[in-house]
Amino acid sequence: LANYEHISNGSVTTPAGFTAVATACGLKKNNQLDLALIYSEQDCTGAAVFTKNQVVAAPVIVDREIIASHNTRLRGVVVNAGNANACTGAQGINNARAMQRLAAAALGCQPEQFLVLSTGVIGVQLPMEKIQSGIEQAVSELSPANGRLAAQAIMTTDTQPKHLAVTVNLPEGQVSIGGMAKGSGMIHPDMATMLSVLTTDAQIAPDFLDGLLQTAVNQSFNRISIDGDTSTNDTVLLLANGASGIPITDDDSIHAFGAAMTQLCTELAKMIVKDGEGATKFVEIRVTGAGREADAHTIANTIAISPLVKTAFAGSDPNWGRILMAAGRAGVSFDQHACALWISADGQSWLQLLAQGTPTDYAEADAASIFSQSEFQIHLQIGNGLAEAIVWTCDLSHDYVTINADYRT
Amino acid sequence: LANYEHISNGSVTTPAGFTAVATACGLKKNNQLDLALIYSEQDCTGAAVFTKNQVVAAPVIVDREIIASHNTRLRGVVVNAGNANACTGAQGINNARAMQRLAAAALGCQPEQFLVLSTGVIGVQLPMEKIQSGIEQAVSELSPANGRLAAQAIMTTDTQPKHLAVTVNLPEGQVSIGGMAKGSGMIHPDMATMLSVLTTDAQIAPDFLDGLLQTAVNQSFNRISIDGDTSTNDTVLLLANGASGIPITDDDSIHAFGAAMTQLCTELAKMIVKDGEGATKFVEIRVTGAGREADAHTIANTIAISPLVKTAFAGSDPNWGRILMAAGRAGVSFDQHACALWISADGQSWLQLLAQGTPTDYAEADAASIFSQSEFQIHLQIGNGLAEAIVWTCDLSHDYVTINADYRT
Repeated sequence: LANYEHISNGSVTTPAGFTAVATACGLKKNNQLDLALIYSEQDCTGAAVFTKNQVVAAPVIVDREIIASHNTRLRGVVVNAGNANACTGAQGINNARAMQRLAAAALGCQPEQFLVLSTGVIGVQLPMEKIQSGIEQAVSELSPANGRLAAQAIMTTDTQPKHLAVTVNLPEGQVSIGGMAKGSGMIHPDMATMLSVLTTDAQIAPDFLDGLLQTAVNQSFNRISIDGDTSTNDTVLLLANGASGIPITDDDSIHAFGAAMTQLCTELAKMIVKDGEGATKFVEIRVTGAGREADAHTIANTIAISPLVKTAFAGSDPNWGRILMAAGRAGVSFDQHACALWISADGQSWLQLLAQGTPTDYAEADAASIFSQSEFQIHLQIGNGLAEAIVWTCDLSHDYVTINADYRT
Repeated sequence: LANYEHISNGSVTTPAGFTAVATACGLKKNNQLDLALIYSEQDCTGAAVFTKNQVVAAPVIVDREIIASHNTRLRGVVVNAGNANACTGAQGINNARAMQRLAAAALGCQPEQFLVLSTGVIGVQLPMEKIQSGIEQAVSELSPANGRLAAQAIMTTDTQPKHLAVTVNLPEGQVSIGGMAKGSGMIHPDMATMLSVLTTDAQIAPDFLDGLLQTAVNQSFNRISIDGDTSTNDTVLLLANGASGIPITDDDSIHAFGAAMTQLCTELAKMIVKDGEGATKFVEIRVTGAGREADAHTIANTIAISPLVKTAFAGSDPNWGRILMAAGRAGVSFDQHACALWISADGQSWLQLLAQGTPTDYAEADAASIFSQSEFQIHLQIGNGLAEAIVWTCDLSHDYVTINADYRT
């Protein structure tokens, strides 16, 4: 994008008027940061996308209400890691509301002006005394300099904080968008144990904001898969405080702004995959030749979640039969004798493994060399249709098992 | 079942009139058995259930035709391990037909009287010279004593052969059923990298046979999950040669015989799960309170394939929030606040972890003690409906990754 520029060490506090703070309130071990606030002095319009899981965490229940009823006067978000506040019944909902109320009170706002996010272990009540003292200590240190620390505070099994910001040049002037996200298990389309907060200083009406966020999430966070599991807590929040003084109302500008937001979300989404639990490979799966995009997407997803495909990635084994096997079980009809498959380490030079459903006479060493890279691409053509889809995924390694076999201890 | 008795060391050759042979023709390394024939002097009626994968191996294409057109004059099955003959195009189909023709010719039958099965690596053409000399050497050693060896020859990553036989006492007399199966990756409902051959000396009409096999497979092999992957080759074949001289035509007897076959298939299916790749735990997942059995089954399956649930099993970590998470992403609507969850090590004494969507005050040590067993049961109630389903699964361990990261080398 010509009008899209990265800002060095950018974050949710890069857009004008946003501040943040992070603190260690005792939810994580070893005095690690585990509570963050993002705050705007000016009211924000907001939009959100939530998990499609039937079992939703208390903060999701609370935030859905806020976004439905109060999405033009928002002031901030309070987030904790270390405890998901999910499967916690009525007490959990009360605790989520209390978190919201405590943050709002400490900053002189109304409770419904705050959103709340939680991530971590499921099925344990939040220790509200720790949350309360954490919030009360934190608010005095809100600063535009703390965006990176906020991204660090929301990490669970992530190995590094994920944040960035960009400037977008529009005919009306320059605005900026910032974002942070956390993975890194339960990552799959329809959202995942994934929290993301996006901020912008553009002035933009709630209806436009919602549409742009839906599009951006569909093209980015919903195109990544780590393990096929979808969490109870997944949420992407977007706050627009208008502090740039630049209103975006022109169709072309809205389009350009939306494209920038999609691009920013795609970068965050790829960061999540690259930092997937135990991930050692980043793999792009492109399925072409489908009749409908949804079919291409379903096939690409099914390949991306197949344990047999993912363990072959981990072993640098170009066992492409598993890719065909996974495509075939996706529930989409296609002619196996019309399939072609290529792989590439650089997206330029492609090695064809399969033509018309039959192996080519490629050299095994060439295929193995591509699969031994830390990033590579797979292109499966299933027919002559015009629709296609891309999904980004990672391998399933020993470390994934190690991380998840004993997550709580 | 009162009329169902195990026969010590039983196999596909326990029913009268069946013989078998196994040989090492060089498809596996180290001179391991990799080719087997099951043979009946008398014509058999046959039935089969095949993979639902869109990408099917050549033997599946060939056997579908045989079962559709020639299922009353069958004489046997030829099976190889070490090569799946899948994704091998027109040459693969020719090779599957050649295998069938070679086996038939060596035994003085017509090609259409033989079925063919293959399992192993995908995307490599069968070395037909090895197959041919293997078949030609093998036929002279057909014997009722070789049922166990045949079960051994079809193993891939299985650690032990899976075979059994039972006698069924009916008013008409005693008949027997034998079976063998192999796992042990790509195991999931809708079949899996799973081959099974069942034999019986009962006299039974093809239409009844087909219905009984469909029911048996649906209650057994389609209730197990190792990794959620479904193979290109999965096949269950049933041959009935009538050698007992006992025709089964009475409704009650058909029902009793069918129940015995379902029970035998269930035992084979559980053997597959217990020998799942890297499996250290055998877990029964029961979902009750659903409106429809299909919904209960979908939820139980989704729990069974969740990598996060399965790694928690591997770590003996009673992280039950992941069970709720997986249930919630199954695509079935239910009220999370009506859910209850129990676990048990013996199926008698149950520890309740969740009541009305809220954690009980159970002791963590009690839950951990149950999850540390090599076998345990999970019961999730999702509402007040009357439908339920059971699925059997295993954990996702380091060994699963080790086995599959480098399967081909």
